[in-house]
Amino acid sequence: MASDWEIFYKQTFPPLEFDNVCERLRRWCQYHAAHKHKVALVTSGGTTVPLERNTVRFLDNFSVGTRGAASCEQFLQLGYAVVFVHREASVLPFARHLHPARVLDALAGLRPLVRCYRKAVLGDMLLAIPFSSLTSYLWYLRAVCECLEQETRHAPAALYLAAAVADYYIPEEKLSEHKLESCTGPLSIELELVPKMLLPMMNVWSPSLYVVSFKLETDVTKLLTKAKAALHKYGHHLVVGNLLQTRREQVTLVEPSSLCNKIHSASGEKSLSTSTTDEFSVETHILQLSDDNRSAGLEIEERIVMEICSRHESFIKNRCS
Amino acid sequence: MASDWEIFYKQTFPPLEFDNVCERLRRWCQYHAAHKHKVALVTSGGTTVPLERNTVRFLDNFSVGTRGAASCEQFLQLGYAVVFVHREASVLPFARHLHPARVLDALAGLRPLVRCYRKAVLGDMLLAIPFSSLTSYLWYLRAVCECLEQETRHAPAALYLAAAVADYYIPEEKLSEHKLESCTGPLSIELELVPKMLLPMMNVWSPSLYVVSFKLETDVTKLLTKAKAALHKYGHHLVVGNLLQTRREQVTLVEPSSLCNKIHSASGEKSLSTSTTDEFSVETHILQLSDDNRSAGLEIEERIVMEICSRHESFIKNRCS
Repeated sequence: MASDWEIFYKQTFPPLEFDNVCERLRRWCQYHAAHKHKVALVTSGGTTVPLERNTVRFLDNFSVGTRGAASCEQFLQLGYAVVFVHREASVLPFARHLHPARVLDALAGLRPLVRCYRKAVLGDMLLAIPFSSLTSYLWYLRAVCECLEQETRHAPAALYLAAAVADYYIPEEKLSEHKLESCTGPLSIELELVPKMLLPMMNVWSPSLYVVSFKLETDVTKLLTKAKAALHKYGHHLVVGNLLQTRREQVTLVEPSSLCNKIHSASGEKSLSTSTTDEFSVETHILQLSDDNRSAGLEIEERIVMEICSRHESFIKNRCS
Repeated sequence: MASDWEIFYKQTFPPLEFDNVCERLRRWCQYHAAHKHKVALVTSGGTTVPLERNTVRFLDNFSVGTRGAASCEQFLQLGYAVVFVHREASVLPFARHLHPARVLDALAGLRPLVRCYRKAVLGDMLLAIPFSSLTSYLWYLRAVCECLEQETRHAPAALYLAAAVADYYIPEEKLSEHKLESCTGPLSIELELVPKMLLPMMNVWSPSLYVVSFKLETDVTKLLTKAKAALHKYGHHLVVGNLLQTRREQVTLVEPSSLCNKIHSASGEKSLSTSTTDEFSVETHILQLSDDNRSAGLEIEERIVMEICSRHESFIKNRCS
């Protein structure tokens, strides 16, 4: 009878680059064996547990990989050759000492970037508020909405809600106090729906602001239907629809037709399609980067924000006139 | 009757720095209102869903915050003042252009760090293998163990397993193909236990290597019992025990007493306590940083690795003599 770990490897596939990595590993090991170096494997960072094949959500844990990265440095310091198996985007040896947010203060040679950064800092144009849990996020969200509603009457603010907010959560009273035991067999997690905050946002917290939400799907057939339903239900101004698979090169702007009469797109083009199957109709506008654009280093966010700002401009004019 | 979002805020507490942040936010808004700047809120990155109050595990999602950060830059470019509500440690505006792993190649002024890095690079002393999912991790783990078993006979390698590996996972065949629908009410997730890979590691993949595992708990009373049980069950060499709350300043090394006769600690001290309640006994050795150590910038990993290397040295001598 096969044991559980054997079954695991039978039921799963190796990572994409697996064979190449193994080949590189072998040559690396042989090199160090020839030089009689001591070798250590350091594993580092948390592993994720996908909930879908096209992974949007996964189970994760607290680890950012500091212990592994710091330990790796120490092994190297002591003359070891190290295989460092680490979570993608986790803390890296040596590089971890340079906090990305502080590097720009010290670095020369990146003039335009540094100029943008300096300008933002000198003008106090950027206020960064970090969050990690859903709860923190939702608390800050309401606070910011309420504050902007009150303080931006000169030009009602735009809300550009790009955060990937969890759909499900476990209410405080159902959370276990300590680490769940892993020796007690299978685990069943009961999750509850996170309230849709666009409703109070549009009706209570910030009814005067320009609100753009994001909708990410993996199934293209659902994207427009869901974007339209959201606009109809919450009454906000625009949904940026995107597919997980193509989100870096294509998005679809979806907005109520009633708004499009007043607000024109930045490019002046007519919207690409109109949906008028029932009383509430929307117009869509596809933004796309060509392969040439991409290899020239263009990012689609430049286009998205250009379009949003143009609409926001008109929105402000309508409100303040 | 209170609506679901009202109940949410009634049942949760605001983040720690909430009042201060709100006060800063208000002053910031007033400043920009006085200067008639346009203002945008950009939210960015994924929110986590804790499964425990002392959070070890949480639900997370794919987002690293690129869209939010890139969009934020564009808003600033267009003259906006931006409130950027972002996931901690997510991608940051401007700073995101500097990949931490590449900065060291360009940067001067950090001599000792750069020297260590250069040395590691020039000597090809570091081989980095990234992973993200549990499956990728476990595939690489086995491959590395098998390779090191075969290729480090000159000095059997040390395995320093610091990665925070998920205890539970959802088998491939039970994963839903597309994003789970969030409109269908509560969600129940059935998770299965991840096989304990120390068993095949010690018996099949790499029986000749020196193996150090990590055990993280939030409940101090369970730490030693579990470390001892693991050593007894898997037959590896050392468990580094640590508590989530104090993991940066204290760890406990736990090892079978039978090994301690052969292998001495780096500091030459006697182990601090011995447990001999039954046939299998362990010795423990506490490593601790004082507040002075911490404020001098010392990291506990330096001590941990020093101790491990000393033991590994003896282990190699015993094996190869």
